[in-house]
Amino acid sequence: MNGSVAANLDNVCVVLVEPQGGLNIGSVCRAMMNFGFSDLRLVNPETDHLGGEARLMAVKASRLLEEAAVFGSLEKALEDCHMALGTTRRFGKYREDFLHPDDAGRFLLPWSEKGRVALVFGREDKGLLTDELALCQRFITIPTSDQLPSMNLAQAVSLCLYETAKALGESRGKDYGRKKQASGKTLEGMYGHMKKTLVDIDYLDTNNPEHILRTFRRIFGRAGLNDREVRILRGLWSRIDWVEGERRKKG
Amino acid sequence: MNGSVAANLDNVCVVLVEPQGGLNIGSVCRAMMNFGFSDLRLVNPETDHLGGEARLMAVKASRLLEEAAVFGSLEKALEDCHMALGTTRRFGKYREDFLHPDDAGRFLLPWSEKGRVALVFGREDKGLLTDELALCQRFITIPTSDQLPSMNLAQAVSLCLYETAKALGESRGKDYGRKKQASGKTLEGMYGHMKKTLVDIDYLDTNNPEHILRTFRRIFGRAGLNDREVRILRGLWSRIDWVEGERRKKG
Repeated sequence: MNGSVAANLDNVCVVLVEPQGGLNIGSVCRAMMNFGFSDLRLVNPETDHLGGEARLMAVKASRLLEEAAVFGSLEKALEDCHMALGTTRRFGKYREDFLHPDDAGRFLLPWSEKGRVALVFGREDKGLLTDELALCQRFITIPTSDQLPSMNLAQAVSLCLYETAKALGESRGKDYGRKKQASGKTLEGMYGHMKKTLVDIDYLDTNNPEHILRTFRRIFGRAGLNDREVRILRGLWSRIDWVEGERRKKG
Repeated sequence: MNGSVAANLDNVCVVLVEPQGGLNIGSVCRAMMNFGFSDLRLVNPETDHLGGEARLMAVKASRLLEEAAVFGSLEKALEDCHMALGTTRRFGKYREDFLHPDDAGRFLLPWSEKGRVALVFGREDKGLLTDELALCQRFITIPTSDQLPSMNLAQAVSLCLYETAKALGESRGKDYGRKKQASGKTLEGMYGHMKKTLVDIDYLDTNNPEHILRTFRRIFGRAGLNDREVRILRGLWSRIDWVEGERRKKG
C-alpha cells in the first residue's frame, strides 16, 4: 500500500448503529479488511459482536471484531470525526445533500486528508432515525430498484467501502496499471488553465464561466483523472491557446 | 423503470458455479432484485437452494430462488450467452483481459443490447477453475487489499451488479437527476467530431490519432456521458473548428 493513501483509509471509520445480527457485523469486518479499513465502531449493538455468528462471517478479519469500539450513542461515536456521511434511502428536502456512492468516495477524499471521517449505517430493518441523520453532514443513497429497495447491511457497507477505497486511490492504483488520482492542487491548476483558454476562445461566457465549467468538473470528477490525463488535457488547452494566438495575431 | 434499459438488465444472467452456502445463494437473490436483475443460474449447487437458509437471506426475493435454473455444467448454463464475464483474482498472461468492475458494466452494455450475457461467479473457497475461466471471454477482478483479498460471494455479486446496473443507466437515471447515458451511436458521433477537430489543429497526430484519443475515450468512458454532456463537448469542438477556420482564412 502507498503510505499516504493508507493514512487516508486509516482516517475512515465505519459506524454501525444498533446492528441486530452477528452475521452482518462479521460480514462488515470482512468487507472492511477487503478494502483496507480497520476502525469499526458499534453503537448499542443488539447482539454479542464477539459471538460465534460474527466470528463465522468475519473469517480472517475477526481482529476487527475484537478491536471494535462500543458506544452508548451515535453522538459519542462521532466525537472525533469532522465529517460524517449517513446512509439512508429517505430523501430529504435538499437533493444536493444526497450523494451517489461513487461521488461519496470522492467527496470524502479531502476530508480524510485532514482528519477523521465516518461512514454511518443504520439498523437492518429501519436504517438511521431522523435524530441520527441530523448528526451527519451529508447523506449517501445507494440507488436500488423500487421492487426491492432495501439492501443487506453488509452488502451496503461493502459497496460504500469499495467506492471509498476506489476514490482514495488505493484499490485502483494497484491492480490495473492505473495511476493514483491527481491531487486537488494539480486538478485546480488544470481547471484554471481550462477556464482561461475557453474564455479566450469565447466558448465560456466571460460573465459566468463557471456555469459550463461545472459540467466539465462533474465529468472529470466522475472519471477521476490521474496525473498523465491532466497533462494530456493541459496539452490540449495549450494547443488551443496557440491556435487562438495565431488567429488574433493575423486578425 | 425505463423500458429499453430494463430490457438490457433482463439480458444479464448471474451464474453461480457450485455455490456451497444457502445463506450466500439467498443473499445473491436479494442483491439481484435490489439492482433489477432476475435470471439466476446455478451450476451443481452443493446445497439445497430452496432450503431455509437461502430463503432467510433472500427475504422478498425468494421468487428468484424458485425460478433459478439448475445446470449440470457451466457450458450448459452459458449455451445461450454470447458474452460471459468470469470473476477471478487470478491474473493471467493478458492484463487487458481483466476488467475493473466499473469498466465491466460499461463493457457489457453493447453486448446486453444484442443478446444474453452472463456474469459468472465461482465457489466461495476456490473461485472458478481454469477450465471454467476458459469458457469466459473476459474477466472481472475486484481490487482488494493484500491483507484479505477474498470477498464474501454475495458481496462480490452485489458489487458487480451495482456497477452493471449503473452502466446500464438504470440505477443512475432515477435518483440523482442524472440523465441516462448517451447511446453508443451518439458517443461515436462525438468521438468522430473530436478526432477531426483535434487533427485539424495538429493536437492529434494525423498518422496515429487514436493514440491520444484512446486516453480521452477512457476518461469519458469512466465518467459515463449523458446526452447533454455530449452536446456540450460537441459545442467545444465546434468552437475550436471556428477558431481554426478563422486562423486559416487569415493565414
